[in-house]
Order: sequence, then structure tokens, then C-alpha cells
Amino acid sequence: MKIFSIAKSRRLRSSPYTSRIEKQGVTAYTAYNHMLLPAAFGSVEESCDHLKKNVQVWDVAGERQVEITGNDSAKLVQLMTCRDLSKSKDGRCYYCPIIDDKGGLINDPVVLRLDKNKWWISIADSDVILFAKGLAIGNKLNVQISEPNVNILAVQGPKSFKLMENIFGKEITKLKFFGFDYFEFKGTKHLIAQSGWSKQGGYEIYVENTNSGLELYDYLFEIGKEFDVKPGCPNLIERIESGLLSYGNDMDNNDNPFECGFDKFVNLESDIDFLGKENLKKIKLDGIKKRLM
Amino acid sequence: MKIFSIAKSRRLRSSPYTSRIEKQGVTAYTAYNHMLLPAAFGSVEESCDHLKKNVQVWDVAGERQVEITGNDSAKLVQLMTCRDLSKSKDGRCYYCPIIDDKGGLINDPVVLRLDKNKWWISIADSDVILFAKGLAIGNKLNVQISEPNVNILAVQGPKSFKLMENIFGKEITKLKFFGFDYFEFKGTKHLIAQSGWSKQGGYEIYVENTNSGLELYDYLFEIGKEFDVKPGCPNLIERIESGLLSYGNDMDNNDNPFECGFDKFVNLESDIDFLGKENLKKIKLDGIKKRLM
Repeated sequence: MKIFSIAKSRRLRSSPYTSRIEKQGVTAYTAYNHMLLPAAFGSVEESCDHLKKNVQVWDVAGERQVEITGNDSAKLVQLMTCRDLSKSKDGRCYYCPIIDDKGGLINDPVVLRLDKNKWWISIADSDVILFAKGLAIGNKLNVQISEPNVNILAVQGPKSFKLMENIFGKEITKLKFFGFDYFEFKGTKHLIAQSGWSKQGGYEIYVENTNSGLELYDYLFEIGKEFDVKPGCPNLIERIESGLLSYGNDMDNNDNPFECGFDKFVNLESDIDFLGKENLKKIKLDGIKKRLM
Repeated sequence: MKIFSIAKSRRLRSSPYTSRIEKQGVTAYTAYNHMLLPAAFGSVEESCDHLKKNVQVWDVAGERQVEITGNDSAKLVQLMTCRDLSKSKDGRCYYCPIIDDKGGLINDPVVLRLDKNKWWISIADSDVILFAKGLAIGNKLNVQISEPNVNILAVQGPKSFKLMENIFGKEITKLKFFGFDYFEFKGTKHLIAQSGWSKQGGYEIYVENTNSGLELYDYLFEIGKEFDVKPGCPNLIERIESGLLSYGNDMDNNDNPFECGFDKFVNLESDIDFLGKENLKKIKLDGIKKRLM
């Protein structure tokens, strides 16, 4: 297969970690939410093997946040997803298909409820911020919508738990899957979730304080030596083996959540108000025509 | 400077011309509207020199169209841009800054009026389709919004006029700048505009019939031999020399149209209804703080 280079430009934004991963041997990028997302550090097979046995640190700043605050923020977030968030709790992550009025997928983010009037939508590769803005303007909702300066570091792999415990203490091991809380590193608090784009376990650090995040990045590699820590990135082989779907690769706006096997995230029976609800009811009644496998 | 490869995936969609340009020596890609956009065929300097003297064929399928049809289509298009389209005409292209309710830029597309109830927004790199959908849903507008299967071929450079005349006849040379019309190639009509992302002159062919477009692609290179036709792509050197701005590179949502020098495309005096109008009035009154040069 021919190799083509990626043309860098300001439009494909670097992350705070880009200069570090380039010293550490990144070999390929993809573009994700208008950012450079590392796609390989040499052999993808070797990286997959390493991920399954050890621990990796990933620059996944391309997972951008859409921040929605204000009195109508819960209403707007619910309007965009077919998953019932009426019983959602602060400090929890929710995998939420975002759909349009036809029931077609627009994104499949993880939604973080920081409090009932502050939400982060941690997005896959499409400009959800524009959909949210359009809906908020059209519906005259009392919300503020922005892309905060958050640059996620993922720590993934079976040894991530020990590594993170060595830095943040025993408390972090008590975090449940898809739970998040704030943990201190040298005087700076970081929002950390037990989550990540692999099935090998680990954490995502939602870095808001860039300077502290860079110091933490270096510290992860220093402390992580005993666990054979390596730089890495979402791994194509691991994600396919683990059955993780990718918006834009496995599904897009032509697919509805049933076709993607997201049935348990579609709550048609509750009285919540979301886009495409009537269409999804009809689709379900008519019978699902295809299934992603 | 280190070279990094681009990781191909279905999420970075190929165009119908990708296999051809790869045979013809494309060396670098960028990502644009979730597609592969060629960024270099070897030396960018040599390609720039060639473009200024001869003619090039560009795969710019990454310039996607947002198609808006229906009774409220004109209303929705106007809502998104600060440029007065009330006197717009069928068969004309309009450079239209798209702004949000704060007056911040979201895109700077060329808008084509196919008829008063059918518009194509030929977008720079952001998901305008999601903004349009959000606005249409929120405002309950009677429109249909889609991304049609249109894959633009640009024919750029001083010899593009002769080359296109040899294929489409004398009629095409009568097309005015930013005018478009339908021209026949071997029995298939193609929408062709006198436009393009260089200042060297030329055309953009909005290919809807992919098979005919591929035949046309090959024919352009066959007939173009006498004009030293080469494959090319939007050229970084030429665009900077020509002062062409690029959304995401030179400006983004933090900039308003005045700061980008788009004053003549901001119509605050007419009675049209568009987002951010009051904010832009205020910004103008307060005085512009910075200017892109």
C-alpha cells in the first residue's frame, strides 16, 4: 500500500502534546474534529500487543468537548439524544447516540454531567457544537455553548490502574467505570474518568490546565517506566477485536441507532422530549432492516 | 521538517477521483469535510509555477455541498449569512460568510442559487449541515437538508479557458465570473461555474453523475496535453500570494466578518433577517479591534 504524507496546517490543529509525541516516534496521523490525532507509532500490531499487556498514554485531544451550561442545558442535551437522561447523576459519563429529527445518527459521544446546569459532550468526529447552536438559537434556549480548552490524555491498558494509583493514590482505584471525579496532581485538580477508547481498561484525564497537563504527561512516562509505559493511540486492531464502533467508519447519518445495536440507549417509552422520537417509534414498528455486526 | 503519514480510514472518505490522483503522483493529503483532499503532487513551488502558466485539474470533492430545498429554503439560507441575498439570481454564486448568533464565523462558503427553492452551500471545512439542521428544526422551517453526491473537479490556470472551450464549446467562455450554467459532455449535463480556489482563473465542475465525471476527468487530461495539463490541488503558495483566506487557517469562530475584511459582504442596513445582526451592529459601532492582513 502506498504511503501518503499528511499536510500540516493550522486548520488541522496540534494538541499541547503534539511536540512530545513527535519526539516519541509517532509515525501517522488522522484528522479528528479538526485536530491531529495520532494513528500509529510504528507497527499497529506491536502496539496492540503492548496495549493488551501493559499501559499506554494517548494524546486524544481530538476528542473535543462541547460545553453546554445555563438553565436550559439539560433540556438541550436531552433534545439531542434518544437516551433518557432524566435520572442522570453528577459525576457520571453516559454513552449517548445523538440523532437528528429523522432518527439518523449525528455523533455517538460520551456525555459528562458536571452538574445539572453544566454538561460536556465528548464528541466523535463531527461538529456537534454547530448542531447544538442551531437548536439553541431556533428554540430560544437559555444556554451558553462553547468548546472549552480541554485536551484529553488517555491512560489505557491493564497496568493503567497501578500507574494511576502511584500518581493519584488509592482513591482513584475506587472510581467506577464511567464515573469521574477530580484528583490532584502537584496542586492542580484534574477531572479524571474511568473510561477510554479501548477495552483494556483505563482512564481519561480531561486536562483543562495545560501547563499542569504537560507536567503530568512527562510524569506519567517517568513513573510509568516500571510498567513499560509507551505512547500510543486508539488502536485499529484492538478496537475491531473489542467491537468498538467508530462514527464515520462504521456508521454515519444514514444509520439509525437500532441499526447500530444501540437499542439499550434508545428510550422510547419514557416521556422525555428528543428529536426523531416519533420517527424512531415508526422505524421500530416497521422492523429493523439491517444490523451492523 | 519531519514527515508523517496520513492514516486512511473510511471516516476520511475518498473521492471518485482518488484512485486516479494516486496513479498520477499525489504525495500529500489533508482532511477537509471528512474527506481526503490532495495537498501536494511533489514540489508545491513547482506546482505553483505551473498553475500560473498552464492549467491544472483538481480533485476538490472535499468542497461538499449542503443542499437546501423547500418553501423556506431562502429564509434559512438568509438566516445563516450576513450577506443580503434578497436580490440574488438563479445561476449565480455568492461568497457568503456564515455566522452564528454572536457574529462569530462558522464557515465562508460560496452559495449557489439553483432556483429560489433550491440552494447549494459549497462549504469550507466545518459541518454547516448540522447548523442548518439545528436551525431548521428549532425554527420549524419547511426545508429539506442533505449532502448530495456532488464531487467537484476544478480546472484552474490561465489555459483553463481554452481547454474547457475545446470540450464544451464557445458558450462556456461567455460564463461570467461566479456565474454558472449547465454544459453537456457526451450527453450528460454538468453544472459548471466560473470560479475556483485560485486567482489564476478557471472553472469548477459540480459533478453529480459520477460515471460521466470520471470520463470527463480522463478526457480533460487527454485533450489537455497540448496545454501541458497536470493534476494539482489548492496551492498554499498561490493562495497566500493571492490573499485567499482559509477558514480554520486564517480565521475561525473567534473572528467576526469585519475582522476578516468581509465588510462588503455584511449588509446591516437592509431589512433582511439573519443571525447575529444586532451583535454585528454593536461590534461595528464599538469599532473593529483587529484586522486580518
